[in-house]
Amino acid sequence: MRAIRVLGVDPGLTATGYAVVAGDGARPEVLAVGTIRTQATVPVPDRLSAIHGKLAQLIAIYDPTGVAVEEVYLARNAPSAMATREVVGVVKLLAQGRRLYTFAPREVKKWICGSGSAPKDQVIHMVQSLVGARDLDSDHAADALAIAICALLERTG
Amino acid sequence: MRAIRVLGVDPGLTATGYAVVAGDGARPEVLAVGTIRTQATVPVPDRLSAIHGKLAQLIAIYDPTGVAVEEVYLARNAPSAMATREVVGVVKLLAQGRRLYTFAPREVKKWICGSGSAPKDQVIHMVQSLVGARDLDSDHAADALAIAICALLERTG
Repeated sequence: MRAIRVLGVDPGLTATGYAVVAGDGARPEVLAVGTIRTQATVPVPDRLSAIHGKLAQLIAIYDPTGVAVEEVYLARNAPSAMATREVVGVVKLLAQGRRLYTFAPREVKKWICGSGSAPKDQVIHMVQSLVGARDLDSDHAADALAIAICALLERTG
Repeated sequence: MRAIRVLGVDPGLTATGYAVVAGDGARPEVLAVGTIRTQATVPVPDRLSAIHGKLAQLIAIYDPTGVAVEEVYLARNAPSAMATREVVGVVKLLAQGRRLYTFAPREVKKWICGSGSAPKDQVIHMVQSLVGARDLDSDHAADALAIAICALLERTG
């Protein structure tokens, strides 16, 4: 059986977190983790293109079986939620030919912390403990890792 | 001076209208117009990929100077607005290296009909009269044409 390998993405126009994980949810192997940042002064098509380019590169290198992304449905900040959803569109486009996993923020908290209302810090803490000393360069990277692990748990748990 | 040429897009996961126009807003030359349809039974990444593929083909053929897309901010139907925004993300990604025009529905109505509160039928009627006997295969195609013409009007009017 081919090992499960997932690219998890925490989408955002300013900062998109990514993580490539393999194995099972309880003891995930982290193959890559980081943050793609784009500048607000750059035109949106160039910013989306930068995010697309880096994620396409990760897919080419790690050939994940699935792509997992967080989907926010109703947000207090509608314009920001709309910009984020444009990034989600780019991520889903890249998932073509692979299994797509989508999780609401509540689901991520529930899978990782056991409660859908867990504070955000607790998710980051849990994820950090799973990956040990490995440095996570941002909360977005931690979120991406949490999302990727959710996909592993859904497949194996 | 290089002629202005615009790809207008009315984004939607089920039906995306497109139109390539050249010249000025008062007497636009329509180079291409149509509708990209995708089936609800097909995975979202494949649907976005079909939309991306067709629009990329139009861009390769017509090499537009700009890409114009309608942006809906606050919608009654939030999940549908979110899915549409994912298509907007794919359109903006394709606009890389070209001028991006975005219009709110009210702006399209104002440019085409002179009033931001004009009924939708009036936009379609105005656009149809501009292109004469040429058949528009859907309201989405008519909307895309209206959006493309808005970009021409903004540039030349």
